[in-house]
Amino acid sequence: MFKPIGTVHSLFKKREDIPAKKYAYPQGFDYVTGELELFKKYEKGLDDIQGFSHIIVLFIFHKSEGFRLHTKPLLDKTLRGVFSTRSPSRPNAIGLTVVKVLERKGNVLKVAGIDMLDGTPILDIKPYTPRDIKPDATFGWLEDAMKKENGCED
Amino acid sequence: MFKPIGTVHSLFKKREDIPAKKYAYPQGFDYVTGELELFKKYEKGLDDIQGFSHIIVLFIFHKSEGFRLHTKPLLDKTLRGVFSTRSPSRPNAIGLTVVKVLERKGNVLKVAGIDMLDGTPILDIKPYTPRDIKPDATFGWLEDAMKKENGCED
Repeated sequence: MFKPIGTVHSLFKKREDIPAKKYAYPQGFDYVTGELELFKKYEKGLDDIQGFSHIIVLFIFHKSEGFRLHTKPLLDKTLRGVFSTRSPSRPNAIGLTVVKVLERKGNVLKVAGIDMLDGTPILDIKPYTPRDIKPDATFGWLEDAMKKENGCED
Repeated sequence: MFKPIGTVHSLFKKREDIPAKKYAYPQGFDYVTGELELFKKYEKGLDDIQGFSHIIVLFIFHKSEGFRLHTKPLLDKTLRGVFSTRSPSRPNAIGLTVVKVLERKGNVLKVAGIDMLDGTPILDIKPYTPRDIKPDATFGWLEDAMKKENGCED
């Protein structure tokens, strides 16, 4: 039903390359640049992306096998309900990362904020909109986990 | 590859029921409550959702047929690259809405911020995290479109 529209190019070649502790900081991956390359036939779909500083990338956790309803998050030692985590071990292995758009060149977006593996299949790109900003949000178990991990950057 | 994990219960029974102009306001759908009902076998995956004020819902635009690389957004009269819109007419008909969690009862979440049709198949539920907040974001063509539509609520 769903199929990839492109591929992520990232410095992270394998899982161990991803600095997990960065997840404790909202800006932890902001320095990590990479490219989102859409297949040529989808290139025109990127028109009008200019002016959007951020986009939402949906992708396939292609190294994920099966799922667990309770799973141990990277930042916690406790088993948590999978829908309260961003773990790859989910019933539908779809990942989501908000990245910053640096430049568009044809079918390629250069972006910052990459936490995906190199070769990750892209499912969708959406503009990040005012409705996606929830400044008063609270974060359950994640708040304590972030504090333990050196506190939360502001 | 991907299959629904549950169903949206919404007041919107058909597309025309959804007040499109509400999309011009970041808080436009905040008053719209509804339920996300997961299939019983996924119920345990909702554990630990308490304390997260907001969740990201991924769902199937199940009424969408085919896609266009240039499409006319609800809030604009100009054709736009589909990846700069949240239109259902996308290569992978996956939708995304951030909603507020009001209450969990077993396999059902009562939420606010529903803009989906009744009967929409749910693909995933993710916690909304600090990394998803981009307070300095800019919104390209959408900024003008929102201003035209009575201005943007603060």
